[in-house]
Amino acid sequence: MSGARRVPIEYAEATPEVRAVYDDIMATRKVDRVNNYWKVLAHHPPTLRRMWANSKEVMGPGVLDPLTKELIYIAVSVTNGCDYCIASHGAAARNKGMTPEQFSELVAIIGLANETNRHAAALDLTIDEQFR
Amino acid sequence: MSGARRVPIEYAEATPEVRAVYDDIMATRKVDRVNNYWKVLAHHPPTLRRMWANSKEVMGPGVLDPLTKELIYIAVSVTNGCDYCIASHGAAARNKGMTPEQFSELVAIIGLANETNRHAAALDLTIDEQFR
Amino acid sequence: MSGARRVPIEYAEATPEVRAVYDDIMATRKVDRVNNYWKVLAHHPPTLRRMWANSKEVMGPGVLDPLTKELIYIAVSVTNGCDYCIASHGAAARNKGMTPEQFSELVAIIGLANETNRHAAALDLTIDEQFR
Amino acid sequence: MSGARRVPIEYAEATPEVRAVYDDIMATRKVDRVNNYWKVLAHHPPTLRRMWANSKEVMGPGVLDPLTKELIYIAVSVTNGCDYCIASHGAAARNKGMTPEQFSELVAIIGLANETNRHAAALDLTIDEQFR
Amino acid sequence: MSGARRVPIEYAEATPEVRAVYDDIMATRKVDRVNNYWKVLAHHPPTLRRMWANSKEVMGPGVLDPLTKELIYIAVSVTNGCDYCIASHGAAARNKGMTPEQFSELVAIIGLANETNRHAAALDLTIDEQFR
Amino acid sequence: MSGARRVPIEYAEATPEVRAVYDDIMATRKVDRVNNYWKVLAHHPPTLRRMWANSKEVMGPGVLDPLTKELIYIAVSVTNGCDYCIASHGAAARNKGMTPEQFSELVAIIGLANETNRHAAALDLTIDEQFR
Repeated sequence: MSGARRVPIEYAEATPEVRAVYDDIMATRKVDRVNNYWKVLAHHPPTLRRMWANSKEVMGPGVLDPLTKELIYIAVSVTNGCDYCIASHGAAARNKGMTPEQFSELVAIIGLANETNRHAAALDLTIDEQFR
Repeated sequence: MSGARRVPIEYAEATPEVRAVYDDIMATRKVDRVNNYWKVLAHHPPTLRRMWANSKEVMGPGVLDPLTKELIYIAVSVTNGCDYCIASHGAAARNKGMTPEQFSELVAIIGLANETNRHAAALDLTIDEQFR
Repeated sequence: MSGARRVPIEYAEATPEVRAVYDDIMATRKVDRVNNYWKVLAHHPPTLRRMWANSKEVMGPGVLDPLTKELIYIAVSVTNGCDYCIASHGAAARNKGMTPEQFSELVAIIGLANETNRHAAALDLTIDEQFR
Repeated sequence: MSGARRVPIEYAEATPEVRAVYDDIMATRKVDRVNNYWKVLAHHPPTLRRMWANSKEVMGPGVLDPLTKELIYIAVSVTNGCDYCIASHGAAARNKGMTPEQFSELVAIIGLANETNRHAAALDLTIDEQFR
Repeated sequence: MSGARRVPIEYAEATPEVRAVYDDIMATRKVDRVNNYWKVLAHHPPTLRRMWANSKEVMGPGVLDPLTKELIYIAVSVTNGCDYCIASHGAAARNKGMTPEQFSELVAIIGLANETNRHAAALDLTIDEQFR
Repeated sequence: MSGARRVPIEYAEATPEVRAVYDDIMATRKVDRVNNYWKVLAHHPPTLRRMWANSKEVMGPGVLDPLTKELIYIAVSVTNGCDYCIASHGAAARNKGMTPEQFSELVAIIGLANETNRHAAALDLTIDEQFR
């Protein structure tokens, strides 16, 4: 590795082990390409395999619907200021039906929660009995 | 003010201006008491009034359902490590029907998003064309 | 060291090297005791000495007045959710004349900034030419 | 909406409702244009109106002077790593008289507070009696 | 679930599925009990199993030595202000040989990095050619 | 200062006071140029001098080896999302021998710690007796 930024590993140049993960990502998500997150993780196959297994389990079918899962993911990513994640999960949310109006409400809630979180810290609030 | 932690202002001792906000909070939320966040904000009535107006508008009826809004709020609060907010919005979510299983999935998503947010930062990922 | 939390080192049991720092802290701040931050740092005298030198220089006389410096310190500490720092610099600010009304405005600004910071991240804003 | 990044809505193409907010922003701040934050929020007029009302109240005349308010805003924005907000409130602070020397002191305080905030977390400090 | 805080699930009351994970944790770490993190995660067995698999792989034998891995874990936990994680990984680090002097250096580095991280944000630094 | 971003001060145009710090940085690190962090701090010589003294002491010879110190620094910088610091300390770590495989493990640990930190917050864990 000569530089700091790792070059994404494309399908054509990937090992069979890495291709198997790429194939599963594309099949599971019903897309025809793999995004940079996975192509850069591929420099360390155990991490690629592990993170895909995590993602598949956590973001896969469950008791929360797929769009709600993406909105939660975006809420975290915005709070952490992760541009890549906001872009990738914003796209995923739109693919799952997020409307511009829903996005606007999401942003409003994220902003308000960040505001009141700091109010709570500043004011050193005692947790109400009824919340315990 | 002798100390750092402000004493919550109870209804009985509140001014009419503050009581009007408390009344609206209880009527809107259909609860019979006001939690500490508002009772401490009440030391500065303009902030109490302003924040309640914000909360009522942002967390009120919209295109996202009430439970989804609470899940988003919790996702932010957990990411910021705000114990008070996790407790109060956790209670609100349970009141709106959040099941233990849904909470478990929520926590799993929050954790995974925080993990991949840091991977993205560490790996200095280029945003894929298809996400723009 | 048997436990995780380090016992504060009191003046009576401190080495001359540590006492010299304690003496300077008390003389500079015109107080008659040293708070726990310094008494715990004292387990590693080079860090105690270094951090006091930093604090004395940064928080000492300059072009910003002493109360403004404390307000800035609190703004950071609230944003990071540091209870100890909010308490200690809240006390310092009150000693330097912060009124309850000023504290309320401070909290309002901190909250608003945290809110709009997240809006900016979510909306991927382009920086306006006039700000560069 | 075809893409993720929302196009700023210029005055010429704005609805009367949005123009009314823009007009008030320009009149209140005595500037002849509106910055991108507001022009992107304008995609959701209720949020535009709500956030401007908040900003006008919190950042308007009060017991803290206008420059101090901006310094607090910058302290939060730097701690959160919000490039847009650092740029916009940095410009606002310079317009309100912030000197390069004051900015240098501000940056030094922000850095120190972030450092000691983490020391406090790492060392699990007990809050001193006198701070309560 | 009547309350917000989940009761840790003890070995005696755990299902065989959960006990199998507990057994593997104790055998792998050569300890005779499981800490609360796992006992609370056990309310959602898929997450318990998944997180233990992650932890075992990431914190297990690799090219970084076990103590270094714990120091990195603590650095993250302090930066996030996670008291539980600082306590648990602090204990793990001490078990793996961390001396008080090493802990002091660790804390000093964490503090300094948090400070300079904010300087870099405030000053909007251009990344030097030689770092790319 | 006409703009927000400060121009790095090159050696040729620096005052003798600033050059003395630059000289010490280059001699201590055995490099032939100074990176932008220092060249921008140089606008405020007391901060330049102070921060270099801090860095030299904290990152200099001690009980933790130089590469471990850099890994800790990167862990903090990634958690804070500081691109400049990730780049500069990533380069420093590579200069001190960090292999691609070590970097991959570092990234995996940082991600996992950020994940479990949030789990701990969400689940409001009680710290185990044995960790105190």
